[in-house]
Amino acid sequence: MKILVVGSIAYDAVETPVGKRESQLGGAATYFSVSASYFTDVGMIGVVGEDFDPADIEMLESHNIDTSGLVKADGKTFRWTGEYMEDINTAVTLDTQLNVFGDFEPELSEAHANARYLFLANIDPALQLKVLDAMDTRPKMVANDTMNLWIDIAKPTLTELISKVDTLLINEEEAKQLTGEDHLPDAAKAIIKLGPSSTVIKRGEYGATLFGNNFSFAAPAYPLERVIDPTGAGDSFAGGFMGYLASVDKVDEESLRTAAIVGSTMASFAVEDFGLDRIKNMTKSEIDERFNAFVDLTRFNPLT
Amino acid sequence: MKILVVGSIAYDAVETPVGKRESQLGGAATYFSVSASYFTDVGMIGVVGEDFDPADIEMLESHNIDTSGLVKADGKTFRWTGEYMEDINTAVTLDTQLNVFGDFEPELSEAHANARYLFLANIDPALQLKVLDAMDTRPKMVANDTMNLWIDIAKPTLTELISKVDTLLINEEEAKQLTGEDHLPDAAKAIIKLGPSSTVIKRGEYGATLFGNNFSFAAPAYPLERVIDPTGAGDSFAGGFMGYLASVDKVDEESLRTAAIVGSTMASFAVEDFGLDRIKNMTKSEIDERFNAFVDLTRFNPLT
Repeated sequence: MKILVVGSIAYDAVETPVGKRESQLGGAATYFSVSASYFTDVGMIGVVGEDFDPADIEMLESHNIDTSGLVKADGKTFRWTGEYMEDINTAVTLDTQLNVFGDFEPELSEAHANARYLFLANIDPALQLKVLDAMDTRPKMVANDTMNLWIDIAKPTLTELISKVDTLLINEEEAKQLTGEDHLPDAAKAIIKLGPSSTVIKRGEYGATLFGNNFSFAAPAYPLERVIDPTGAGDSFAGGFMGYLASVDKVDEESLRTAAIVGSTMASFAVEDFGLDRIKNMTKSEIDERFNAFVDLTRFNPLT
Repeated sequence: MKILVVGSIAYDAVETPVGKRESQLGGAATYFSVSASYFTDVGMIGVVGEDFDPADIEMLESHNIDTSGLVKADGKTFRWTGEYMEDINTAVTLDTQLNVFGDFEPELSEAHANARYLFLANIDPALQLKVLDAMDTRPKMVANDTMNLWIDIAKPTLTELISKVDTLLINEEEAKQLTGEDHLPDAAKAIIKLGPSSTVIKRGEYGATLFGNNFSFAAPAYPLERVIDPTGAGDSFAGGFMGYLASVDKVDEESLRTAAIVGSTMASFAVEDFGLDRIKNMTKSEIDERFNAFVDLTRFNPLT
């Protein structure tokens, strides 16, 4: 197992300007795992309810995802209900039912505890910390995501966690909220001051900007003609980003740059259909082709 | 004269989160000309009032800008009063005094009428059309900018003008308003359907995206730590963009891509100080250095 991810597995009710789904497989850990599975071996830690469809486990396992860390608990699977208005970048959460996720206590097997890469998807930072502390050996790279809720109600714990990770992946608005800085480079600098050696600021349809100690890298979003469902774009980005790093087993600046484009590639696929419908059935050549479209989208000649 | 620009010359009252200026030299034609002057010979067509400061003419002429097309009319120079709130991307116009600009009738000398490149900055599209029609020979490249006001009150004339230009430079919001399309690639496609072979969609702090018939190119904005005054960023972009094209005298896809980065380079300087304070005193090596920073901001290695 190259990458371990801990995070939500969910059934989402989603409405976008294009259509509506009553109950689709979702959750940060799910999007991350499927996306990363095209690059490396992934194991998931999480909890599902009694209502969890065995076909969804089969789909994950068909991607060689290790689901031994998925606990089945009494009750219902975590459920998120959200809507995207005209501004397709921002989800409006209509309802969140934690269900089995409310009492979730992650438990790691020996294989889990020795994963070389660890992604702490957006959950309570106390749980993220618990997983990090439960690792037998410090992974080569630890990254995490978070959200405004935890900045509001658990900032000290979140700050402690961030001080221990290598890379924070975070939305632009939340980066500004976390740091109190209005300008992106200032927010990134403040994050790096907290501990990480790099941070990826996610900017929705404007792409993502990667900041390191002494470099920045702008990854554009792919100019898609149709965005069907933005849910999971950020976690699909994270899956491509860390999946690529784990596959080359390098976390230097050059690898981080390429990884950000791989992440953008996977995010661009994720939003092309509802839920996981697009990214659960992909070929390596489709991924290569889209990656090359990013090369074309960004290339220019030097001044003459 | 390689490039002719027609557009406003103004005294602006500007307030930004960083400070305030009561009356600073501005106007689209001014920003464009000074920016383009680092790359090629520029001539301006426009009107100023009796209050126009001779020192400002001297500044323009120190950039080898041909100001013979600047008419001095009875009355006051065009005056724009604007404010930038927390969202530094969007100016709030508090007051517009057309003054001498209200009766402006552009007149072209023979040299003006034979310029090889023509930029029709944001003014009444009827005036933009008049200048285009007054050219002796059709320029190698004609580009224009516009704004929401003209889309609202002069759409047929604007559409006629756009059908005759090679490149439309336009803000993202205005591109969507003009075309009725919500998605950027759709809006770009609709613009190209109107006639231009390319369009540059300006996205403020998110950069600019260039669309051609069968390619797109994402130019990021430079992640500046301090934006002092965004006024003129778009016109400084246009000046760098067309200035570069005129300097290499090519308008093919490769040149347009590089030109978009040159435009982004000049825009990134323009916002670093109030008005023209930053871009009126620059060196070629500063420009080269910033251009190379864009190379570094966007470079990544292929998949391995």
